[in-house]
Amino acid sequence: MKITIDRAALLKPLAHVQSVVERRNTIPILANVLLQAKEGRVSLTATDMDMDVVESVACSVDQPGSATVPALTLYEIARKLQDGSEVELTVAGDSGRMAIRAGRSNFSLPTLPVEEFPALSGDELTTNFVLSAADAKTLIDRTRFAISTEETRYYLNGIYLHETQANGMAVLRAVATDGHRLARVQMPLPEGASGMPSVIVPRKAVTEIRKLIDETDGDVQIGLSENKLRFAFADTVMTTKLIDGTFPDYERVIPAGNDKIMRVDCRSFKKAVDRVATISTEKSRSVKLAVNNGTLTLSANSPDNAQATEEMDVEYGAAAMEIGFNSRYLLDIADQVDDGGKAVFQMADAASPTIVTDEADDGALYVLMPMRV
Amino acid sequence: MKITIDRAALLKPLAHVQSVVERRNTIPILANVLLQAKEGRVSLTATDMDMDVVESVACSVDQPGSATVPALTLYEIARKLQDGSEVELTVAGDSGRMAIRAGRSNFSLPTLPVEEFPALSGDELTTNFVLSAADAKTLIDRTRFAISTEETRYYLNGIYLHETQANGMAVLRAVATDGHRLARVQMPLPEGASGMPSVIVPRKAVTEIRKLIDETDGDVQIGLSENKLRFAFADTVMTTKLIDGTFPDYERVIPAGNDKIMRVDCRSFKKAVDRVATISTEKSRSVKLAVNNGTLTLSANSPDNAQATEEMDVEYGAAAMEIGFNSRYLLDIADQVDDGGKAVFQMADAASPTIVTDEADDGALYVLMPMRV
Repeated sequence: MKITIDRAALLKPLAHVQSVVERRNTIPILANVLLQAKEGRVSLTATDMDMDVVESVACSVDQPGSATVPALTLYEIARKLQDGSEVELTVAGDSGRMAIRAGRSNFSLPTLPVEEFPALSGDELTTNFVLSAADAKTLIDRTRFAISTEETRYYLNGIYLHETQANGMAVLRAVATDGHRLARVQMPLPEGASGMPSVIVPRKAVTEIRKLIDETDGDVQIGLSENKLRFAFADTVMTTKLIDGTFPDYERVIPAGNDKIMRVDCRSFKKAVDRVATISTEKSRSVKLAVNNGTLTLSANSPDNAQATEEMDVEYGAAAMEIGFNSRYLLDIADQVDDGGKAVFQMADAASPTIVTDEADDGALYVLMPMRV
Repeated sequence: MKITIDRAALLKPLAHVQSVVERRNTIPILANVLLQAKEGRVSLTATDMDMDVVESVACSVDQPGSATVPALTLYEIARKLQDGSEVELTVAGDSGRMAIRAGRSNFSLPTLPVEEFPALSGDELTTNFVLSAADAKTLIDRTRFAISTEETRYYLNGIYLHETQANGMAVLRAVATDGHRLARVQMPLPEGASGMPSVIVPRKAVTEIRKLIDETDGDVQIGLSENKLRFAFADTVMTTKLIDGTFPDYERVIPAGNDKIMRVDCRSFKKAVDRVATISTEKSRSVKLAVNNGTLTLSANSPDNAQATEEMDVEYGAAAMEIGFNSRYLLDIADQVDDGGKAVFQMADAASPTIVTDEADDGALYVLMPMRV
């Protein structure tokens, strides 16, 4: 194979695909990127056996062919080559080496056989639909912070994406929980998604998809089967295996009768929680909320006897109550409320889960377990 | 004590002094900052027993007095308080607590007795002189990268600052070396420095001084004794103990007869070294320089059989030669050469130390030990 390509045109897809490569892995071929050149384009593929990313880019193909070379090394080379330079990538016959030339720089990298490069099997994707980049972002951003990192509960290590009914309407819903908090976001079911399988998208795939979304504006094509998910952008396709497990019946965790309603300006609330939490220990991070009439008092204590309290005005009409939360979790949720908007707390008592919603967004709902303080 | 101070006015000195506080220390008082309020100013002091930083700032002193409170906590509080807020710091009688109030935020921090706060003994500083901030920066920046981190050779864990003669002129000279490379920078001896003791300034003090210089424009007052160094800025004074050891006779390391002279454009050289070093292993980082007539060829190999070479034009008239260096060390030195300027390599052979200088700056000189490649 022999191609000539502008350094920037090579760098972009390399940056995307190398991100999938695990920094430590025992199977040498997984450290490599697969390059396949034909018909005026080169496609680059990287995989960790659970997911792969394929991106193609236009280039001058002087001789079609394919090869695999160390992904990070090729990426570092492309990154360091002079901006604006033309890069020539050549694999001469069965030399087992790729020559990389740009200006007066020459590199020679060992290759591994293309046949060894693992391909994710091309299952048929039974469900296909389209999401706008903005909707895909919302589904991810509003839930990913609640994904569990506990490996023993592997079925919580991702976002549960499924179809359901809400207020008599079909919705696409994303849910994540780690047992301490739960995030649920939904939107009208996209055309074509009806009958979709319920799937758990693993954390790493979520992270990679999220990065890719940031670099596109257009729509995202989604393909789904029982055990695969595909996210396709204009020139980039990410395919991931799904978590093979059963997501728990999360609806049971969402309380129905919480009748103590508090409305707070979310920006001020965030800052106040952050300030008061300065005092709480790294370990517990607990903050107490005491609400009485129109005043919320936040407070924290540390074992070495430091104290913090802060008052703020809120809208609250129910009986006075106190409840404790992990400040980190409060901030995570507050971060999801539109800047300048109001967060609505629906509470029952100091021992029961609290619901938090964004007054301006009825698609998202958060459940937070209290802490004893 | 009771003072009222603008949040920003409190934050700045706190940021400076908290930086000295060791994050882990077994002596509780060393985690604290000492506040001393009188005559319209509050002074803040932090120490790690080897150095201290004292900074004072104007404030409204409602009641003079002093107290010590956890430095990092007070800093975090000041950092998170609303910009523009007035902060009230009060220690009521012998309550053992400091109350901090700003708007509707209230904090209460435990104090420790002021008497327990260690003071660096006020030795008489026998030598006093002034450096411009720019000169102080040069002395530090051109040498600090070569400071050894090997704890067994503790006398190399700092910058050796001393008076000497160069070309018949009295100079102030700074030297650092880790045995693999050496950096030497000198400037005309400032007035008042004549007869100064030769001292080794420890790495941590160097780091703190460098941060402080970045935040001032004016001159730096330097005071020196056999075992103390003081750097004084307008409102900030840093005092450090010195390393109690003998700096080796570094002059012996600087070769005299190196007659193979190579001049390179330093910016291009840096980029070429960085590119070629992509291939060298994390462990050896070695890069080979082969120079012949007007062409320098840089090359590197990795154990997994990748190769890189790059050519560049240089000025060189001596016999062809090859020599290997640690690429990291080459880049450290290249970083010291004025951007766009030329670096001059004075070489002898592949086994002997090489001298590198900046063509545009005869105050700085670097010695680099070669590697076998």
